[in-house]
Amino acid sequence: MKLTILGCHSATPRINTNPTSQVLEIKNHMFLIDCGEGSQVELRRNKIKFSRLKHIFISHLHGDHFFGLIGLISTFQLLTRETELHIYGPKGLKDIILLQLKLTKAYTSYQLIFHELTSKTSELIYEDDKLEVRTIPLNHRVYTNGFLFKEKENERKLDINAVRDSNIDIAYYRKLKQGADVVNEDGILIKNERVTKDPVPPKSYAYCSDTVYDEQIIPLITGATVLYHESTFLDKNEDLCKKTKHSTARQAAIIARKSRVKSLILGHFSTRYNGYDEFKTQAKEEFSNVLLARDGISFEF
Amino acid sequence: MKLTILGCHSATPRINTNPTSQVLEIKNHMFLIDCGEGSQVELRRNKIKFSRLKHIFISHLHGDHFFGLIGLISTFQLLTRETELHIYGPKGLKDIILLQLKLTKAYTSYQLIFHELTSKTSELIYEDDKLEVRTIPLNHRVYTNGFLFKEKENERKLDINAVRDSNIDIAYYRKLKQGADVVNEDGILIKNERVTKDPVPPKSYAYCSDTVYDEQIIPLITGATVLYHESTFLDKNEDLCKKTKHSTARQAAIIARKSRVKSLILGHFSTRYNGYDEFKTQAKEEFSNVLLARDGISFEF
Repeated sequence: MKLTILGCHSATPRINTNPTSQVLEIKNHMFLIDCGEGSQVELRRNKIKFSRLKHIFISHLHGDHFFGLIGLISTFQLLTRETELHIYGPKGLKDIILLQLKLTKAYTSYQLIFHELTSKTSELIYEDDKLEVRTIPLNHRVYTNGFLFKEKENERKLDINAVRDSNIDIAYYRKLKQGADVVNEDGILIKNERVTKDPVPPKSYAYCSDTVYDEQIIPLITGATVLYHESTFLDKNEDLCKKTKHSTARQAAIIARKSRVKSLILGHFSTRYNGYDEFKTQAKEEFSNVLLARDGISFEF
Repeated sequence: MKLTILGCHSATPRINTNPTSQVLEIKNHMFLIDCGEGSQVELRRNKIKFSRLKHIFISHLHGDHFFGLIGLISTFQLLTRETELHIYGPKGLKDIILLQLKLTKAYTSYQLIFHELTSKTSELIYEDDKLEVRTIPLNHRVYTNGFLFKEKENERKLDINAVRDSNIDIAYYRKLKQGADVVNEDGILIKNERVTKDPVPPKSYAYCSDTVYDEQIIPLITGATVLYHESTFLDKNEDLCKKTKHSTARQAAIIARKSRVKSLILGHFSTRYNGYDEFKTQAKEEFSNVLLARDGISFEF
């Protein structure tokens, strides 16, 4: 699982900071999460192949999270893309994109499939045999969802020496990986745990931006491998959180602790601050494993 | 008159090239002309004060000319702008902007005044006591206008020694500047040309992007101080001009020659080429005073 941060700043793009956008590589997918203005340039800067992007998730309709989407869609068209593109985002996003395509006379030659979100409770929005994606309803000024990307249980691993010693026909290997006991060539029942090893635990990534501190998300993200939680402000500006419906680094860390996630990545920094060390310092007083997002950085988990 | 090129490339933004946007400083105005994705960052990079932008001109609804507008409007709002903002562009642009402001719940606190253009003949769209702006209908795949920014005749200059020697009361100076003859304190009629000098000739800037080669624009831009004419292609790709309704550098230069403009600036380069020298070489075979646009460059005239 690899996460590349294209931008992790709030508000508008500046010379040295990008608004929110990131790419999650998981189970051979490249998921684009949010798409602030300039994201297509950041994708190129980070050498991410446009053709590998097939699913785009937009958390909410604030400009710093989606103003780059129409440009990316148009670029795909210029590149004569043929692969269909799925876009998951709040109701309204489809209207915004289609109106612009209509007026620019640029209907796409590839299929553009919108999955408009309106539910205020968590819902399954994508699933295949390797993973699933669920919404995490967030509490912000406009309708907002985070997203939980969760691998499915991996198959058990064969202990290949034990399997051979047990004289099991190769035709049963698949069943073994699925956890079943099997009968060997001598007619003896072989217990699964004798010849297999525990699978790699499934990983999960919870993306939560933008949101005020809200404990209601905890049951949805409990135990996640990685939590990206917005931390727009430092303690000294906590008073701004209520009005703007954002969080402090400390609040993000309290959510991480209470959710018992393995790692916390802080991001969506207000551009009012000059450095980021203080975000980490304040968060670490609540939770030990804190990482700071940075435009152009990649994390592997 | 100062022109700053924020971007001069066709198609989408890339790591090292920006789509079309430029700022014309003329008679104490800062006019923003076109606004591709990322223009707000380029404005900052070029240290152009956002508060000085009061009029934005959009040539046509192709993404590389307007996808940055919604971001800029939103940033103005974040900066709690109060000054009204005038936007001149094709019908439809207003719908695109207002739909996004509505769905992002970000109505502006400043007045946003749209001047929707639909005319297929040149029209006066802005005028004050110092200058006027007229549309230049262009021939492109969608409804497109260039813009002609033209200073009004400047006032005559007082020859201050001659004025004093002629014993003219200071109350008449204004009339002299306007070209009138006046009666001096001795009751003698003083001919205007005896005590004033010719004014600085008015300057004009013709912006023509995007367009196929079209001689119909010539009467509208004849004698302009500066013509910016798109030159998407080189001679070897002239065959693409008809289909895409763009021009070659040579065609731009022929228009410049036939319009008897003083200088030609080439821009809107296709990103298929690696260098720009050839644009200049081919254009200079038709017209001598050729300049190349470059992202981040300024010209003074």
